[in-house]
Amino acid sequence: MTYCVAANLHEGLVFLSDSRTNAGMDQISTFRKMTVFERPGDRLIVLMSAGNLAITQSVREILSQSAESQTLWSARTMAEAAEVLGHAVRAVFDRDHKALAEFNIEFNCTFILGGQIAGEHCRLFQVYSAGNFIEAGQETPYFQIGESKYGKPILDRVLTPHTPLDEATKCALISMDSTVRSNLSVGLPLDLLVYHAGDLRVGRFVTIQDDDAYFNNIRHRWGSLLKDAFHSLPELNWSSMQIERSAPILERLIRSTDQ
Amino acid sequence: MTYCVAANLHEGLVFLSDSRTNAGMDQISTFRKMTVFERPGDRLIVLMSAGNLAITQSVREILSQSAESQTLWSARTMAEAAEVLGHAVRAVFDRDHKALAEFNIEFNCTFILGGQIAGEHCRLFQVYSAGNFIEAGQETPYFQIGESKYGKPILDRVLTPHTPLDEATKCALISMDSTVRSNLSVGLPLDLLVYHAGDLRVGRFVTIQDDDAYFNNIRHRWGSLLKDAFHSLPELNWSSMQIERSAPILERLIRSTDQ
Repeated sequence: MTYCVAANLHEGLVFLSDSRTNAGMDQISTFRKMTVFERPGDRLIVLMSAGNLAITQSVREILSQSAESQTLWSARTMAEAAEVLGHAVRAVFDRDHKALAEFNIEFNCTFILGGQIAGEHCRLFQVYSAGNFIEAGQETPYFQIGESKYGKPILDRVLTPHTPLDEATKCALISMDSTVRSNLSVGLPLDLLVYHAGDLRVGRFVTIQDDDAYFNNIRHRWGSLLKDAFHSLPELNWSSMQIERSAPILERLIRSTDQ
Repeated sequence: MTYCVAANLHEGLVFLSDSRTNAGMDQISTFRKMTVFERPGDRLIVLMSAGNLAITQSVREILSQSAESQTLWSARTMAEAAEVLGHAVRAVFDRDHKALAEFNIEFNCTFILGGQIAGEHCRLFQVYSAGNFIEAGQETPYFQIGESKYGKPILDRVLTPHTPLDEATKCALISMDSTVRSNLSVGLPLDLLVYHAGDLRVGRFVTIQDDDAYFNNIRHRWGSLLKDAFHSLPELNWSSMQIERSAPILERLIRSTDQ
């Protein structure tokens, strides 16, 4: 599996990806899921991928070739860049889907594509297996691909477009922690790229390994904080609950030997 | 969809189920997912179900008939009760799976079965579509069926067999809250049954509606506590991160126009 998350904020963009891939539980490897397309002063585009690794690598290969008429380098807007990615996905589909179908392998790939091209603000897209795509907006400023459920609640509670970059980064790391904890097929090292709007070049990039002091610190602290939060919730108060009102429901749910 | 969770603790058992079912997004209804089999002084068995409603209702119907040679009433142990449930699932499979296959409908059902029969301690089982089953143990004292991912992290962090009943109940309610918040197809009212080991009759039962003061209070408080916990995490400290060590990785991830 995979887990990648990205957020589009007023201050810039955050990208975080894990690096575990598996072909069954008994074949687990490390592959990077992030690719960075940079022409300093002109554009910074980050691609993250989930799904069948042979498919996503083929798509990345096509994007890295400059032979196409329209490329990530010639796109004038991020929406055009998303179209370029969509075309690459469709090219791989046309080439491979029949052969994959012979082996009952689904054509399965999803991408997050975000960045900034000179003249535009930062934008963030999610591109599907069919090559179609959606853009993140004010209400939902983030996208997740891969194993998204465990790490979604914290994003929903914390992220808005106004969230400062460092805070959004912390939020992405907590979201990743919840995912890594619950799904063995998502794992370290993590690639983290934080981009300040307007820079038009790679901002901060760090690979987080098992021994990363900050990540381990917030993982550990988050665990204790959650437990503390749980224990500070008000005690169950049965007397305040609608026990009488519930009696007719219980009667309907009960089967006794007399029935 | 559905979300049901149950825990087996030294003090007893907790069962919590939602009541929303949907056949597509445009057909949402309320159906109870909990059934209680009670012979006071002899046995208390609680069944919760997820999956295709026609299948789970058929299974429940078979279990409620006393015509079978081996029933939930004649089972001498909870393991035998789980076998009875497994047989009922297989009976429905034999009857329906061909007809369902004609419509490409998967034979999909999962059950949680827990309770106590006189002479035994409390036990908790999960029964699959194939009629096979597993029992909860010391390390994993809970089971979830249906939409399980959103609500799993809090269970993993809080629940052990030593958790007091009221605390486990609170934990189940928080787990349900996370699920209801993230998946529209899981919804109130909730059925909550808390059983004290040794009672051999229904313990506390309450149906939690939208206007339940306690549930709304802990939902609201949990949201604020999570946000507070998040904001009390240590700030990102870029200077402590392995930026230099990451540089070679970044170089491999970057595509520039020169390539």
